[in-house]
Amino acid sequence: MANAVVGQSGGPTGVINASLVGVIEQAKKHPGIDKIYGAVHAVSGMVKENFIDLSAISDSELEILAASPSSGLGSSRDKPDEAYCQKILNVFQKRDIRYFYYIGGNDSANTAYIINTMAKKAGYDLKAFHVPKTVDNDLLVTDHCPGFGTAAKFVACALMGDDLDNRALPGVKIDVIMGRHAGFLTAASALGKQREDDGPHLVYIPERGFSMDKFISDVDKVYKKLGRCVIAVSEGICNENGVTWAQVLNQNAEVDSHGNVQLSGTGALADFLATQVKTKLNIKRVRADTFGYLQRSFAGLQSATDVKEARTCGRKAVKFSETQKSGSVAMKRSEDGKYAIKYFRTELANVAEKTKSLPAEFINADGNGITEAFVNYAMPLTGGLPKTTYVGNNPKV
Amino acid sequence: MANAVVGQSGGPTGVINASLVGVIEQAKKHPGIDKIYGAVHAVSGMVKENFIDLSAISDSELEILAASPSSGLGSSRDKPDEAYCQKILNVFQKRDIRYFYYIGGNDSANTAYIINTMAKKAGYDLKAFHVPKTVDNDLLVTDHCPGFGTAAKFVACALMGDDLDNRALPGVKIDVIMGRHAGFLTAASALGKQREDDGPHLVYIPERGFSMDKFISDVDKVYKKLGRCVIAVSEGICNENGVTWAQVLNQNAEVDSHGNVQLSGTGALADFLATQVKTKLNIKRVRADTFGYLQRSFAGLQSATDVKEARTCGRKAVKFSETQKSGSVAMKRSEDGKYAIKYFRTELANVAEKTKSLPAEFINADGNGITEAFVNYAMPLTGGLPKTTYVGNNPKV
Repeated sequence: MANAVVGQSGGPTGVINASLVGVIEQAKKHPGIDKIYGAVHAVSGMVKENFIDLSAISDSELEILAASPSSGLGSSRDKPDEAYCQKILNVFQKRDIRYFYYIGGNDSANTAYIINTMAKKAGYDLKAFHVPKTVDNDLLVTDHCPGFGTAAKFVACALMGDDLDNRALPGVKIDVIMGRHAGFLTAASALGKQREDDGPHLVYIPERGFSMDKFISDVDKVYKKLGRCVIAVSEGICNENGVTWAQVLNQNAEVDSHGNVQLSGTGALADFLATQVKTKLNIKRVRADTFGYLQRSFAGLQSATDVKEARTCGRKAVKFSETQKSGSVAMKRSEDGKYAIKYFRTELANVAEKTKSLPAEFINADGNGITEAFVNYAMPLTGGLPKTTYVGNNPKV
Repeated sequence: MANAVVGQSGGPTGVINASLVGVIEQAKKHPGIDKIYGAVHAVSGMVKENFIDLSAISDSELEILAASPSSGLGSSRDKPDEAYCQKILNVFQKRDIRYFYYIGGNDSANTAYIINTMAKKAGYDLKAFHVPKTVDNDLLVTDHCPGFGTAAKFVACALMGDDLDNRALPGVKIDVIMGRHAGFLTAASALGKQREDDGPHLVYIPERGFSMDKFISDVDKVYKKLGRCVIAVSEGICNENGVTWAQVLNQNAEVDSHGNVQLSGTGALADFLATQVKTKLNIKRVRADTFGYLQRSFAGLQSATDVKEARTCGRKAVKFSETQKSGSVAMKRSEDGKYAIKYFRTELANVAEKTKSLPAEFINADGNGITEAFVNYAMPLTGGLPKTTYVGNNPKV
């Protein structure tokens, strides 16, 4: 018998707590696990021994936790180097922690990888498992990431409503969506399209360069045709030189410990694009919204599919640790056309530090829209979207 | 037998289509009503005779319409003067329209009032009824407005998630919420508070002056105490001279036909406040989001109470028009403590052009928070909020 620790790292999601609950409920059944520590604020809590007892949480509280957005244990943006990881390993040894479950993105997989490697070298018997999480959907190996489906549902519902709003009061509407390098979440803006002329009419993702001239000409075309235009733009779009527009607009933007420039939590890009459209096309009603943290932490709006998979990923990490030394949980989609998921283990090194981009077959030839292949891929992850209607285009009488 | 027309005016809401469906289903039963015209883009459609046949919509489509956000008939920001209203009256006479139902805010009540007065003078027998709608909840006479409960639910769920996000990655978070003159929707940010230290920790509404020095000192106090601070700010907050901060920041802001300066659809106020906090308090992690149009047009997130009441208000307008000449539908809350609503008719003049502010008993003494009385008033309108939990503050082990 030995002890286990669980942590949640990086940006919160709508279902990262479901993964935590999955780990807890399975760890309770694990014959080799005694105490289940929760590390408060991830690696920072591991170093400071800021632990809570996760087995003390009642079943009914666990269900509320699984339905709550954001990281119930707190998170951290620390990027642990070797010295930092050595401190963690010391605490593990001191507390006889031999099961380490880390819920997060590729940075978290890398932390698990480093600690696992150090433990091996030190001859310390540790099982280190990574549970995938990200709204960006940018992890390798897995078909998709827990957290994405719920964020995709939010973005799709937002655009469905925003397109109807734009029909009611026509003009140009720009929505800036999360996604530093990967365009999956911005692409999800198109999932709610039900009618031929539904927005978003233009979708810009970080995988394609964003030229201001092309953008203005794209908007002009749609506006001339429809008398309105709804646009989804990723916060991570870059200019021809590969520099994010957010950085072009704010040279003093904050940089975190991972070297990432702050993109979210500011409306500068949206306002800049709106002003460009307004002045260059002389269109009066131009509005822009930045969805910000609502996309990852809105209460009460989980994808049923996503929350179920997130919880299963947590449980699988513990199951895999019964027979394996380390790994990352991944999902594989059934190939028979019906949506079904199988869970498997992959090496930490396959996921650590790497990222995936939106595949070329999901992006239209013009680089300003999304293909049917993406809709087929992403729709099941949302757990279904509401149906809407607009009657203002019914036959005149 | 004569014909009826329905229109939807002003900013869309999440349940304005439920009111439209209420009008349609009741008008079908009205013994004196023949055709039911839908005016596309409100008054502008009435002048241009841009009408659709609302009785042709199937029952199943009507249910989808009632669940769809935004104005399914299209809306308009036109402010009709007497000449404009005369044109409308001419069309009414030409098409034998003798029932006029107008869903909107105080401007729409005023339009109904003007047209009703002109019809009377012209000796034209017209029934003119206003159906209340606004996310701002600022209409007189009625206990609350259809549209507010759904928007309040969105804002409350957003803040619940955002507060949990801010616990996970602590810092200062500023959320800018709709509300030009009335603070009801910004106040709704506090409805989801479940724990003593839940955010929003500070709430600023247009009914109180917003001094930058006081704001900075408020944030400093909360941040020093909790190590984090979540703030809800109305887009309509004014400085000591009664000028909106949005206008102070953008002298060139758009002004609409009602004389309203553009507040929504820009992130300038949020970014400005974030920069103030960052520089004056030297806090590193300061983020700001502007909720924008999501608040009024998010798909699939209605308050069950709100959608039911909105539909009933539509039906009541038609019922009242069986025996009365004109009026606005209003709601009265039961005084026995259990939430229940009675519907009644009030004169158009009682609602036209006037607005209500957040009553003083809903605002704390310091002018930076909301009272329990507001929570008791507004909570039933949301139809209930999800429960959440955060375990990071559980006892250390």
